Amino acid sequence: MNQDWNERFLNDFEALSANGATSGGGVERQAASGGDLKNRQWFEELLKELGATVTYDEIGNQFGLFEFDPALPFVGLGSHLDSQPLAGRYDGAYGVLAGAHAAARLAERINSTGEKPLRNLVVINWFNEEGSRFAPSMMGSSVFSGKLELQTALQSTDLAGTTVKEAIAQAAWGPVKTAPEISEYAEIHVEQGKELEKSGNQIGLVTATWGARKFQLTVKGEQGHTGSTLMADRKDALFGASLVIASVRRLTDNYQPGELQASVLQLTLEPNSPVTIAREVKFNVDLRSPSSEVLESAQQELDSIILAAEDESKTSILKEQTHHWDLNPYPRDGVELSRQVVEELGISHQEIFTVAGHDSTNMKDLVSTVMLFVPSKDGISHNEAEYTSPEDCLAGVKVFTEVAAKLIFS
Amino acid sequence: MNQDWNERFLNDFEALSANGATSGGGVERQAASGGDLKNRQWFEELLKELGATVTYDEIGNQFGLFEFDPALPFVGLGSHLDSQPLAGRYDGAYGVLAGAHAAARLAERINSTGEKPLRNLVVINWFNEEGSRFAPSMMGSSVFSGKLELQTALQSTDLAGTTVKEAIAQAAWGPVKTAPEISEYAEIHVEQGKELEKSGNQIGLVTATWGARKFQLTVKGEQGHTGSTLMADRKDALFGASLVIASVRRLTDNYQPGELQASVLQLTLEPNSPVTIAREVKFNVDLRSPSSEVLESAQQELDSIILAAEDESKTSILKEQTHHWDLNPYPRDGVELSRQVVEELGISHQEIFTVAGHDSTNMKDLVSTVMLFVPSKDGISHNEAEYTSPEDCLAGVKVFTEVAAKLIFS
Repeated sequence: MNQDWNERFLNDFEALSANGATSGGGVERQAASGGDLKNRQWFEELLKELGATVTYDEIGNQFGLFEFDPALPFVGLGSHLDSQPLAGRYDGAYGVLAGAHAAARLAERINSTGEKPLRNLVVINWFNEEGSRFAPSMMGSSVFSGKLELQTALQSTDLAGTTVKEAIAQAAWGPVKTAPEISEYAEIHVEQGKELEKSGNQIGLVTATWGARKFQLTVKGEQGHTGSTLMADRKDALFGASLVIASVRRLTDNYQPGELQASVLQLTLEPNSPVTIAREVKFNVDLRSPSSEVLESAQQELDSIILAAEDESKTSILKEQTHHWDLNPYPRDGVELSRQVVEELGISHQEIFTVAGHDSTNMKDLVSTVMLFVPSKDGISHNEAEYTSPEDCLAGVKVFTEVAAKLIFS
Repeated sequence: MNQDWNERFLNDFEALSANGATSGGGVERQAASGGDLKNRQWFEELLKELGATVTYDEIGNQFGLFEFDPALPFVGLGSHLDSQPLAGRYDGAYGVLAGAHAAARLAERINSTGEKPLRNLVVINWFNEEGSRFAPSMMGSSVFSGKLELQTALQSTDLAGTTVKEAIAQAAWGPVKTAPEISEYAEIHVEQGKELEKSGNQIGLVTATWGARKFQLTVKGEQGHTGSTLMADRKDALFGASLVIASVRRLTDNYQPGELQASVLQLTLEPNSPVTIAREVKFNVDLRSPSSEVLESAQQELDSIILAAEDESKTSILKEQTHHWDLNPYPRDGVELSRQVVEELGISHQEIFTVAGHDSTNMKDLVSTVMLFVPSKDGISHNEAEYTSPEDCLAGVKVFTEVAAKLIFS
């Protein structure tokens, strides 16, 4: 029976990966875009086959309800099916499918043994975890957990000016119902780092999220003619931006490897004409560290970087902080519960931090939460080459099923 | 009578500037976009009022024909009505309107004196001189002068993927006829520099165009997760690009002021997600100088800049040369003809170089050509604050009319 489920998991994962597949072996399923829409439809059908009832909430979170007793609250098993552009197959998608299979295995167990669970199960595909098309990331779980206003989220626009509200209306997901009441939450995800690969352990017990400081910078210069504006008269916003981008990256050389990640990733410029000096450039700055002291010091250095860039480029640079959190621990009871499971199953494991944010980052502030990792080959993620072996995928589903079992039976 | 024409010019220029007007006092009339379409329609009506017949050619050049004798070839008086995004009112538009008024004044003179001209006149609004929406710039005059294939130009796309062919088909300009045969050409334009303002002279006699080397650079990195990809593992294309952009600008510090202009202006990045390291960045590099030696040396330094950026960012950078010309003189006979006119009229003048390209840069390789400048306040151009005083505008029209008179009567 387990053998069948394992085979079926790998087959389902192949089928899932065909939705929004790219020629490079990855997927492109940005939130509410073509690949995501197709995949959500596919997943709705899978959930129904597995015995779930499917509903949505107003921000587009997709729920697969396995209701054993209408009087009981739900244990949530979730992650996200949306992806970055030209992304890998595993990020988010692995965890959602693992949740669906864990729930179906447990429903089968309940059906055959007659054992009475103390919780129902709901498989959750959170809307727009990636945030590449619509900011902010982790949108669906942020609205669910009350950290983001529904109306604010619905008004977020992509670079083409389409709002989340319009994108969701077009998708016409239904039925839209009040989200189920969730009493515990569990998520499994690919590590997107190299720690498990290095140690050879198959499961990571996530104990905390790295701290982060995120900013939106706007460089204001002056539009002018490329050829005829003298160098001394220029207020070139793209030059100002390039000075900051180069310095932000070099900033990490001042720290030990693994102490600070600093990145600039998204940038827009006006007017973006080949013969006109840019009047305005906007870009994000993303600082991450397990240490609040490192983040504070990096943020101060960022201010110095900005002053120097303003001075050299004769521009003015506005800095707006968009996100701010320090090292953020996961609930200890969740870590201990999953440690008990991996010890019982005899699966190699270790405690681990996550640098990336996950929907569980929101859920853990609401309810008792478990977060698990499986290994990522070479730590590659947000890239078509992302890979986790079938053996590691299946070990993860096995552990995740038993974690869910502990959550509904005790 | 002259008083009437002067008043009418300033009124017509106000009316023209209302087409595609921006709230900041400038215009936005990118080629075949809303403001340009409206303005071309307005200009067609003005040309007809002034007595011209209006035709178009296949690339969308707009011709206002003042045909005094069907057997005679045409003197072309041209510039462009399209603009950069958020641009000034004068760039191009001033010269096209000056051409229309010069032709109308001369038609009136011929009508009242019965004098027989040796040439007809055609006022030309060249299509897409700016090149901000569709590359390359000077598109209409490049096709007319045989430097660019019509089919190549028609296939050029904007950032939204629309081709020139589609944009022109939508505009439905007509009638489309074979372009008139042009035997001489004259153009007047705002200087877009500070030389005339500094010297206090009202007219610049353009003797040469600065040399230029233009490149398209592509930085190839590797897409990855913002948070979890270790700094040492990153191949960040935006970091590589920022190193080049900063260094290209700093390169100009190695030269005397006015010896080298070096710019990066247009940039696109993939995937442009706030949480994913850029896999590819494309941008232009624009080097300009009156000295071929300076251009050669700057180009060599660019190669060193690229090598250093590749090394530091672990990316690979491809460089493609898109334009290449050395200091490019205007025909001496044209300069002498216009010198004679300004001396006769007693208007202050000087010889001058142009850093910017103009449609006359194409035409001068085809026929005898005159190029004139009027002053630009603070040298500001490609900016809503672009300004030339009414007195300077009217002096320019006066000179331009007499240049055209010399071209058709002798």
